[in-house]
Amino acid sequence: MALIVQKFGGTSVGSVERICQVAEKIKGFRARGTDLVVVVSAMSGETNRLIELAKQVQGEPDAREMDVILSTGEQVTIGLLAMALKAIDVPAVSYTGSQVRIVTDSAHNKARIQHIDDANIRAELTAGKVVIVAGFQGVDEQGNITTLGRGGSDTTGVALAAALKADECQIYTDVDGVYTTDPRVVESARRLDKITFEEMLEMASLGSKVLQIRAVEFAGKYSVPLRVLHSFKEGPGTLITLEEGASMEQPVISGIAFNRDEAKLTIRGVPDTPGVAFKILGPISAGNIEVDMIVQNVSRDNTTDFTFTVHRNDFRRAEEILRQVAESIGAREVAGDSKIAKVSIVGVGMRSHAGVASKMFEALSNDGINIQMISTSEIKISVVIDEKYLELAVRGLHTAFGLDADTATEDHL
Amino acid sequence: MALIVQKFGGTSVGSVERICQVAEKIKGFRARGTDLVVVVSAMSGETNRLIELAKQVQGEPDAREMDVILSTGEQVTIGLLAMALKAIDVPAVSYTGSQVRIVTDSAHNKARIQHIDDANIRAELTAGKVVIVAGFQGVDEQGNITTLGRGGSDTTGVALAAALKADECQIYTDVDGVYTTDPRVVESARRLDKITFEEMLEMASLGSKVLQIRAVEFAGKYSVPLRVLHSFKEGPGTLITLEEGASMEQPVISGIAFNRDEAKLTIRGVPDTPGVAFKILGPISAGNIEVDMIVQNVSRDNTTDFTFTVHRNDFRRAEEILRQVAESIGAREVAGDSKIAKVSIVGVGMRSHAGVASKMFEALSNDGINIQMISTSEIKISVVIDEKYLELAVRGLHTAFGLDADTATEDHL
Repeated sequence: MALIVQKFGGTSVGSVERICQVAEKIKGFRARGTDLVVVVSAMSGETNRLIELAKQVQGEPDAREMDVILSTGEQVTIGLLAMALKAIDVPAVSYTGSQVRIVTDSAHNKARIQHIDDANIRAELTAGKVVIVAGFQGVDEQGNITTLGRGGSDTTGVALAAALKADECQIYTDVDGVYTTDPRVVESARRLDKITFEEMLEMASLGSKVLQIRAVEFAGKYSVPLRVLHSFKEGPGTLITLEEGASMEQPVISGIAFNRDEAKLTIRGVPDTPGVAFKILGPISAGNIEVDMIVQNVSRDNTTDFTFTVHRNDFRRAEEILRQVAESIGAREVAGDSKIAKVSIVGVGMRSHAGVASKMFEALSNDGINIQMISTSEIKISVVIDEKYLELAVRGLHTAFGLDADTATEDHL
Repeated sequence: MALIVQKFGGTSVGSVERICQVAEKIKGFRARGTDLVVVVSAMSGETNRLIELAKQVQGEPDAREMDVILSTGEQVTIGLLAMALKAIDVPAVSYTGSQVRIVTDSAHNKARIQHIDDANIRAELTAGKVVIVAGFQGVDEQGNITTLGRGGSDTTGVALAAALKADECQIYTDVDGVYTTDPRVVESARRLDKITFEEMLEMASLGSKVLQIRAVEFAGKYSVPLRVLHSFKEGPGTLITLEEGASMEQPVISGIAFNRDEAKLTIRGVPDTPGVAFKILGPISAGNIEVDMIVQNVSRDNTTDFTFTVHRNDFRRAEEILRQVAESIGAREVAGDSKIAKVSIVGVGMRSHAGVASKMFEALSNDGINIQMISTSEIKISVVIDEKYLELAVRGLHTAFGLDADTATEDHL
């Protein structure tokens, strides 16, 4: 019998009505003869309520105790969903992370799954039950309750699918799949039937926050077919797989991601000596600031310019650190800009197609958009542009790479 | 080092402020060099909120899943209290029922504790920590979460005190001890310094709902000294012990309990044949109606009258069943009265003192109160009277048995 692991997020189980809707959906699946393990998050709002409560008691809540408190959110949902299933005559049973047992390391609030005992779940499936598992949580070897960090329920779903060798892990969300780009920006954005893990990782990390990166990495590592679907609308969703889909229809570019949350910092006239990059980024990293893009061009007159991007929230702090660095290494000046946006084209197809970059730059040029930074990877090209051109750039690229809904249909003819 | 188990109920931990107050209180105890295990309930209102949520999903919530949901209430409190202690530099750690492990049978919603592993708690105490344990919950041999039923946190406290051989189990409540009677009825009611388990059981079952009966029984069985105290007021509270306190000062009667929740039913002219009591009470019991007092007097003309009391909520249903019974056994008539009250005097001293009953009846007679039913046990005499005389009766008896605050002081001189 086919085994599917399904994961429903906080919004999908955000009220009693929705929990009952999810139960009906599960009943439908069962009727088609599928074994089901269902992972759920806390009801939407509940995790934040618990965090607030904790912060009122202790400004920086103790990590172990925070997990004790947070894990109750999912625990309530599993009980309610199991009840909702029983209420419509579907045999069901709930499991907390520690009951399963989902064994993690002891890094409270951001624990990593180490192994999963599948014996209990297998026995319940054999007994004909739908097994409801609390997402986001586990237990360490000492029996302490742990949580996987925000979005950890996706990871729980994938990890269970891997442990149980499930046929598919389905992540139910409030979107009906992964799109070529954000439909709020490009009206003709198209739902993708398939995308590779690599592409999904690039899309996710660039701001298409449909799935948690860790879950996608995990699914890729263990070759778990992952499908993103809408909780309450019918449809095939988007399948995330290993295959590169070498068929003719596969477009060179799968999607366009963008991000408005970054700011750019440049340190100019840096003496071009070995170790200077470390001298610049060391203090930034020591200040716990994450750096995204880094660009350094060849030197001129024995000095070079060094540019990188950080989250906008860290902009002022990074700028301050950088001024001190500039002084100590004898650089000329520090410049910063927080009104930027990053636009990326992503697709495994670009590996085998030349001219993808030039096509991208041409499209931007046609729209009169100046490129401030460029960075590339195997399956991605990112550019930083003035924030005000973001929508223009995304729409132009979407059309240029044949991703618009109409064009796509023609492509398939 | 002395070891004390303290239990704080839902009202005592009903808000962030109160949890912090409890933490301060615990810090004070620690400063006096006591090892502490603290049992807490869910924040007040939380258990009802969870029950409501469950009932919306499944009219009659599945018992196993109900326990999964309900147990989260205490789990949140243990985390918050541990945080509140750490925030004021008291080393603390939280334990759920299943982490301890508090092993129960599998009777969900009303599980009974079978044994407690004290290894984890002992290790934490040795490490210098205050151990916070979730009340009301446990785990069965199969790893299912169980709950002990309403008021189960008192039982958890006593059971832990017994398992750890604690010097005392302190139950913190919203009253500062056990009183000779309800101070809302008798202004001169006095807090008792001591009371025996037996007396406490009679007081509790008769309506002085300070402690859960199960917890008192448990404490008595394992000789755990139990103390009732006010959560936020200083004072010695009331100690519940095994000793009968044979000193001169010990009054004959410890307290006066009463109950307005009962109704009385009489079946008259019952043929006085063997098995007739069962024929009457069998159907009542089959209807799941609990019977409290039962009085049958000697027969007259080969017929007898049979009277018993039930909870007022069951009055109409019991009356209906009784009418059918009366017909089938050929009894003369059925009469009922829900405007009654039960008043009881309780005290281990009455075992060795003659004339307690007659003193009670004399006091009632002096106030012109007619006695409708009488029932006695080793350490208790209960009468049923017209509800309207309840306060008059309780005050009269309180004075007659020398329980008034002033009189008592004189006694001690």
